[in-house]
Amino acid sequence: MWDLPSRNVVLTCSVTGAIHTPTMSQHLPITPDEIVDECVAASEAGASIVHVHVRDPETGEPTSDLELFFEVARRVSDRTDVIVQPSTGGSPTMEPEERVAVVPELEPEMCSCNMGSINYALYPLAERYDDWKHEWEADYLTETKDSIFKNSFEDLDVFLNTMRRHDTVPCLGCYDVGHLYNVRRCLDHGWLDPPIYLEFVLGIDGGIGVDPANLTHMKAVADELFGDAYSFSVIPTGTIPFPLALQSVSMGGHVRVGLEDNLYVEEGVLATSNAELVSKAVDQINSLTDREPATSAEVREFLDLKGRSQTAFS
Amino acid sequence: MWDLPSRNVVLTCSVTGAIHTPTMSQHLPITPDEIVDECVAASEAGASIVHVHVRDPETGEPTSDLELFFEVARRVSDRTDVIVQPSTGGSPTMEPEERVAVVPELEPEMCSCNMGSINYALYPLAERYDDWKHEWEADYLTETKDSIFKNSFEDLDVFLNTMRRHDTVPCLGCYDVGHLYNVRRCLDHGWLDPPIYLEFVLGIDGGIGVDPANLTHMKAVADELFGDAYSFSVIPTGTIPFPLALQSVSMGGHVRVGLEDNLYVEEGVLATSNAELVSKAVDQINSLTDREPATSAEVREFLDLKGRSQTAFS
Amino acid sequence: MWDLPSRNVVLTCSVTGAIHTPTMSQHLPITPDEIVDECVAASEAGASIVHVHVRDPETGEPTSDLELFFEVARRVSDRTDVIVQPSTGGSPTMEPEERVAVVPELEPEMCSCNMGSINYALYPLAERYDDWKHEWEADYLTETKDSIFKNSFEDLDVFLNTMRRHDTVPCLGCYDVGHLYNVRRCLDHGWLDPPIYLEFVLGIDGGIGVDPANLTHMKAVADELFGDAYSFSVIPTGTIPFPLALQSVSMGGHVRVGLEDNLYVEEGVLATSNAELVSKAVDQINSLTDREPATSAEVREFLDLKGRSQTAFS
Amino acid sequence: MWDLPSRNVVLTCSVTGAIHTPTMSQHLPITPDEIVDECVAASEAGASIVHVHVRDPETGEPTSDLELFFEVARRVSDRTDVIVQPSTGGSPTMEPEERVAVVPELEPEMCSCNMGSINYALYPLAERYDDWKHEWEADYLTETKDSIFKNSFEDLDVFLNTMRRHDTVPCLGCYDVGHLYNVRRCLDHGWLDPPIYLEFVLGIDGGIGVDPANLTHMKAVADELFGDAYSFSVIPTGTIPFPLALQSVSMGGHVRVGLEDNLYVEEGVLATSNAELVSKAVDQINSLTDREPATSAEVREFLDLKGRSQTAFS
Repeated sequence: MWDLPSRNVVLTCSVTGAIHTPTMSQHLPITPDEIVDECVAASEAGASIVHVHVRDPETGEPTSDLELFFEVARRVSDRTDVIVQPSTGGSPTMEPEERVAVVPELEPEMCSCNMGSINYALYPLAERYDDWKHEWEADYLTETKDSIFKNSFEDLDVFLNTMRRHDTVPCLGCYDVGHLYNVRRCLDHGWLDPPIYLEFVLGIDGGIGVDPANLTHMKAVADELFGDAYSFSVIPTGTIPFPLALQSVSMGGHVRVGLEDNLYVEEGVLATSNAELVSKAVDQINSLTDREPATSAEVREFLDLKGRSQTAFS
Repeated sequence: MWDLPSRNVVLTCSVTGAIHTPTMSQHLPITPDEIVDECVAASEAGASIVHVHVRDPETGEPTSDLELFFEVARRVSDRTDVIVQPSTGGSPTMEPEERVAVVPELEPEMCSCNMGSINYALYPLAERYDDWKHEWEADYLTETKDSIFKNSFEDLDVFLNTMRRHDTVPCLGCYDVGHLYNVRRCLDHGWLDPPIYLEFVLGIDGGIGVDPANLTHMKAVADELFGDAYSFSVIPTGTIPFPLALQSVSMGGHVRVGLEDNLYVEEGVLATSNAELVSKAVDQINSLTDREPATSAEVREFLDLKGRSQTAFS
Repeated sequence: MWDLPSRNVVLTCSVTGAIHTPTMSQHLPITPDEIVDECVAASEAGASIVHVHVRDPETGEPTSDLELFFEVARRVSDRTDVIVQPSTGGSPTMEPEERVAVVPELEPEMCSCNMGSINYALYPLAERYDDWKHEWEADYLTETKDSIFKNSFEDLDVFLNTMRRHDTVPCLGCYDVGHLYNVRRCLDHGWLDPPIYLEFVLGIDGGIGVDPANLTHMKAVADELFGDAYSFSVIPTGTIPFPLALQSVSMGGHVRVGLEDNLYVEEGVLATSNAELVSKAVDQINSLTDREPATSAEVREFLDLKGRSQTAFS
Repeated sequence: MWDLPSRNVVLTCSVTGAIHTPTMSQHLPITPDEIVDECVAASEAGASIVHVHVRDPETGEPTSDLELFFEVARRVSDRTDVIVQPSTGGSPTMEPEERVAVVPELEPEMCSCNMGSINYALYPLAERYDDWKHEWEADYLTETKDSIFKNSFEDLDVFLNTMRRHDTVPCLGCYDVGHLYNVRRCLDHGWLDPPIYLEFVLGIDGGIGVDPANLTHMKAVADELFGDAYSFSVIPTGTIPFPLALQSVSMGGHVRVGLEDNLYVEEGVLATSNAELVSKAVDQINSLTDREPATSAEVREFLDLKGRSQTAFS
């Protein structure tokens, strides 16, 4: 059983994701070399977990290529002890089966698991750019006007039970209040065991908005549904993440930042690296709150992870 | 422009829906005769709006048969001045195009419009019954383990602009907090004009839970997003609806009850008719609050409806 | 340790209080005979606790006369097994020492304890009446424009430690959110032991308003401060209490109604007795929720009361 | 009428107050020279309003000496155009009449007004120190175990109508949710005109706690009670103020920091000046949010102040 909540702050860095495209920021890592370097730098800056997606090295398009996932995980692990948390979210256009394949392949300590279905609308982003670096980008975004991020209960059954068989701890991504009730149902079905680690994802178009009142409500509902058998992190997407990150820290929660979620480090100023976002979060946690960032070793103990030696890429 | 909020309570009755199946209650209206009679009785009991779905008269399976919709609307309108609000939600297994076809066909004063995508899980209901009245029922329910209630932004574009062309006022069904943000986006896109009429749907498996704190949060977010340019109703599904209905009334909101949403009128006691649920709601509004139910005429004025003479079925 | 929360609803009746005056309702019990009869009838109607104040039998003015308190407690106990909970709130104009004297004198199973200071403004009530039954009434009310309901930490120290010495369980009256933090401080000082029984008093002029969102927030803060080591009741003052009472029941809480808190049983209709308010609450709990009222014996077990034989009036 | 809300952030600095004592921080300004210098430096660092108390120059004890108030206001105004906002709160031990006298004497553009009564407990602070710089300090703090911060409706009547006669805009200090309802009553009495400027004071012992959920609830209640005819600031007392200050900014609100409210600039590190706290707030607003601090001229326009030339000290 986990000893929850952790006093120290679990700081996760989401290095590239599947939302932003190369035109939006030249700093978005694309190739395995770039992704690995960004993961290592984020770890050195203070992240205890790196949340990893992979992209086509030529075009930057999100992919679920398992070889790329494996290569990144292995190379990051060769250079640092950060916890490598692969995505099972993929892009809104991937099939569920593709998404969870990373678990049997990598046998990671943790992975993400998205706890419900929403519209996942990237099309408004397309209107902000004219001159695209790659052909696929505009279509990739505009097609989401009709796409759904599908995570049906059948999908959750497959996802969670696959993770359980591989002793991979899921990071439960909740994009709206109803997803907390879905988590409760999965616990009741026995697909998931307490204690649990939730991520409140705020600001995706189609999900709950990125607003302090939504964060406090998500936590109040989680208190009601899970008592003290859960911890939570917050992902403030589409914004400069620090005000909500600090709110989370002052509420006893954890934090995720990174170029997947936040391209800007200040109003109008692109972040030049994931490490820059992580460093800024670390500075603020240290100087503005009474908590401090956790090490990867502390997070392994806190979340009772199986350890890197039990992964396929160690 | 609507004069919002209305002092009197808009009481809607959802007479049959597409969630419950004939095995669950013998009182669920199935045939056009039954649906029409239930609508008329609900109106006489005090409902100002009837929310209508239709079913296969032989099997009771939900259908989007436009002739059935037309027949029910016309026959109800012959007997009472209640506002007939057809569903565009259909069942979770229908295509969007099927769902909105009722608008050009009936040109109704109002219709429902569902403002986002969620898991829409009826499969847990299947476990409560053994002996099914019809063959289709068990499969219909269990298949929802993998189904999504899809209302993408593309769908919303089609839905809302169709309604607008026919001067049909949408009742905006919000199944989670994110759906309120979707409404905001549709307003910003110009697909919808203020003021707006929201329905907070609480308790669908996949959406936000049926809980007083969720109702207060939905309202707080709506206040933030829409100022005073909206009214709201609450649909407490899967429960005895009266406590949440009264909370809504005391918060200035409106109410929907009916066999679509609530099979039981007390713990363990099936409601024997829609009118029974409506009567009980009317009694409580009158005796426990300082407001009273609105007449259909008042609702027409309040929501600035085009009038029954402008429908295709008048 | 209490087994919290109780499944059944603790229904308390506050029979006369110190807020309303004889002019406001002819049904307000004044003399010991009247107060005793109202307590017994409330108990027979389903209240498991009666909250008792006493008044000057001639004028109806609130008093802290210990002989009257003793007489009422003894006579009620002779006729029914209801839990007699004397007030230590007195009227806003009494001194703290007067207020707690009822505890050593009666050694009751429970008593009320008010957990902080607020303006306690009855003066707006004075404007609603012209023709006073007694001379003292108008002044009694208008003087509250400058009065404070004082419950300093020094007072709380005296109150709570007196109750503890007599094994009298306090009902912790919280008139605003800050009072919950005061409770936390008293626990930290060791003046109070968990688990605790809170009453959220909504609608006193000077305290938090009588609104569903305030009830949900009070509960969320209590969850945060006390975990599962508390139960709560709600007192919706100045209103027809049933909508908020039902909200409390659906949130797992308990309820207090009575002529101290609610003179009206419907819009514009004076309650003719405390039992009428209790009966209506009982009916609604039974017919509209999945819980039922607790007996006095169940409440004694739930709150681990010392038993009536340990009181001075048994 | 004010154009509310202001896009830019009103940053107020509370330079010395009446809570902290000289033993707690050597950096607390005591003499008029020190207070004036701190006000000027705070203004230069970016504060548009300085909230001023005065102290006995020899002992540091809070006082309501009008000559000292006048001297400070005049000397600050000679050196900078910051808005000087004297306190009418005084210390918990002063009489109401003493507290408002500063308004007819200084005829300031703004002053504070405390909107309700609470326990105002400084006694827990006394336990943290052994070696007192001045004799009065320990008693001053411990005596608050029995003290009430009294702001009855009678007091509010005097306060607000005095301010109105001198065209002094009140900053309405709300220490708990009930105080917002008190504000509503004062508006209804006509003692106050909309729009209004609220300060949510979080963290005083006796008032609402310093917690993100309380800030969001205070705002939701204010939305309900005042619509868009109000602005708000937050005062996070007893903590490192920046996380809640940023939450306020991201919710559209304003901020107060200063040695009255916050002795520490980081965990365990005393702030060496008010300007240090202001600078840190300015840096964060600029680098972490999409808003920026307002100038004093902007605040004068935003709050429609009468201007410095209309004060007695100009």
